[in-house]
Amino acid sequence: MSVIVLDAMGGDNAPVCNIDGAVDAVNENSDIRVILTGPEEKITVLLKEKQYDKDRISVVNAESVISLDESPVLAIRRKKDSSLVAGINELREKRADAFISAGSSGAVLAAGQLLVGRLPGVLRPPLGSLIPTVKGTTFFLDMGANVDADPAWLHQFARMGSIYMKEIMGVTSPSVKLVNIGLEEEKGNQLTKAANKLLSEDKELNYLGYCEAREIPEWTADVVVADAFTGNAMVKMFEGTASLFLKLIKQIFKKDLLTKLAAVMILPELKKTLKTFDTSNYGGAPLLGIKSPVFKCHGNATKKEIKNAILQADAYVNSGVNEIIAKAFEKV
Amino acid sequence: MSVIVLDAMGGDNAPVCNIDGAVDAVNENSDIRVILTGPEEKITVLLKEKQYDKDRISVVNAESVISLDESPVLAIRRKKDSSLVAGINELREKRADAFISAGSSGAVLAAGQLLVGRLPGVLRPPLGSLIPTVKGTTFFLDMGANVDADPAWLHQFARMGSIYMKEIMGVTSPSVKLVNIGLEEEKGNQLTKAANKLLSEDKELNYLGYCEAREIPEWTADVVVADAFTGNAMVKMFEGTASLFLKLIKQIFKKDLLTKLAAVMILPELKKTLKTFDTSNYGGAPLLGIKSPVFKCHGNATKKEIKNAILQADAYVNSGVNEIIAKAFEKV
Repeated sequence: MSVIVLDAMGGDNAPVCNIDGAVDAVNENSDIRVILTGPEEKITVLLKEKQYDKDRISVVNAESVISLDESPVLAIRRKKDSSLVAGINELREKRADAFISAGSSGAVLAAGQLLVGRLPGVLRPPLGSLIPTVKGTTFFLDMGANVDADPAWLHQFARMGSIYMKEIMGVTSPSVKLVNIGLEEEKGNQLTKAANKLLSEDKELNYLGYCEAREIPEWTADVVVADAFTGNAMVKMFEGTASLFLKLIKQIFKKDLLTKLAAVMILPELKKTLKTFDTSNYGGAPLLGIKSPVFKCHGNATKKEIKNAILQADAYVNSGVNEIIAKAFEKV
Repeated sequence: MSVIVLDAMGGDNAPVCNIDGAVDAVNENSDIRVILTGPEEKITVLLKEKQYDKDRISVVNAESVISLDESPVLAIRRKKDSSLVAGINELREKRADAFISAGSSGAVLAAGQLLVGRLPGVLRPPLGSLIPTVKGTTFFLDMGANVDADPAWLHQFARMGSIYMKEIMGVTSPSVKLVNIGLEEEKGNQLTKAANKLLSEDKELNYLGYCEAREIPEWTADVVVADAFTGNAMVKMFEGTASLFLKLIKQIFKKDLLTKLAAVMILPELKKTLKTFDTSNYGGAPLLGIKSPVFKCHGNATKKEIKNAILQADAYVNSGVNEIIAKAFEKV
């Protein structure tokens, strides 16, 4: 039985979707207990009408919420009574096995790095994310945790990503690529050139060299590594382009009677294709290399994403991947 | 009358599309002369059957071609008889007003920076690109000329971009934004934080602060600035995502009789929408801040893109924008 603590107040759809997601998760998997952090009275009222095993969801009271416009580091230090810090406390004091939040990215990352703390030997904990692509899943990191990266950090990200893909996704020898602005040896900035050297020298990795951003949406490797600045900009460009295309297609469909009819004819196939890219299937993005697992959901997480994040956190805990990462880096 | 020199052998579709594009350009604008560089015999044969004013296209013989896998700096130094270096020579010796190539990006950039040379006061010449978006055009720079950027370089890129948008695109007070991984003051890496400070202090710029990559496809500012590594990765992610979506839509259309019928019904509207994003309308990407204008076309440039690059180079020359940039930076 794993215990997952969920920040009930984090995200645009909190607390309703968070609570619904938690209820769905315990109903789907009988080996999970969920702790919700947030204003107890409000959450209890919302939980009252739901159908679930009452022993498996509990509430830890937390009266305040860390907002998106607060300085992350100051907020996690000052707002001890926030749903986020209350959740992290449950994790630190071993009353929970994993923590999930859809709240302020900066605050979740800061809490993971500063309050939970790095595993010995880990230089920086990267934020990883499973990206659905046409030909398979890519584990992409760093999504935005550590700007101004160092080559040695990128090397560690590749190692952690490989362990994740092997242990959680069952990929035997995960292929690894490094994002660059060209495939030739001489292309790149100082960071990628130095990281490429480190990655090439590590014989325990299945490192295949550089990839370009344009290859990622169709699939290029099991693990793709970039510094957090480039990684975040790329992922946001992907999201921006994808959502723009969907918007334009909807506009086209709405144009006139003929296009509306075409929409009806094409919609089942279109939905099937779009489902491939539905990131909510994967739940949250793990912050790797810290003492206990922390997952960040999208700010606009639906109850489905919250539910899947809880199931994913449970799988993560049961796989023992955190212990495997700890052991791998201890030796360094 | 402006004279544009075109690398007839650069690009995947060379020399056929390059020659066709040149012919179309001189037929469309009677104030343009084109010099083609490449193997004279081959080009002359291809030109023979075309209809155009024979006085306005000439050929400068160049027997070799710089390939994509050559080291750019070595190649431009060693292959003096290449179509690229021959073209740059026409520009340097003032027999042409602008140079265009769809060949190796690295070699074109190296030739512009090293053989043509920077204008006094310019720290680094950025590669700019007009990006078509839903709500308007964005001039994006640096697309890939200068990795490991310095804050002062980004500041200059913003200034050059503003001049370009004002003089070439007729935007009165071009808005400028800097790519970052969040909009809050504390977000970003050392480079963006320092560049943000410089840009904010420059009262001659209409600087509006940070933007995120996801805002770009729908339009966020007239000029968007990023370091070349991030810029190149973002643009390639945009291209990768867009081309993947088109591929998926085509697959959906082909699925069965019903979807094929839907495709017929929707195609005119879809084509109209896609036309908005057709970068070949804009021709080449200018390398700014060098003594004479150099434009880089896509490696897969069609005759339409080549033609538009020639027309754009002519407009650039006539606008006197290079002289305006020279004057603006002279004072620094």
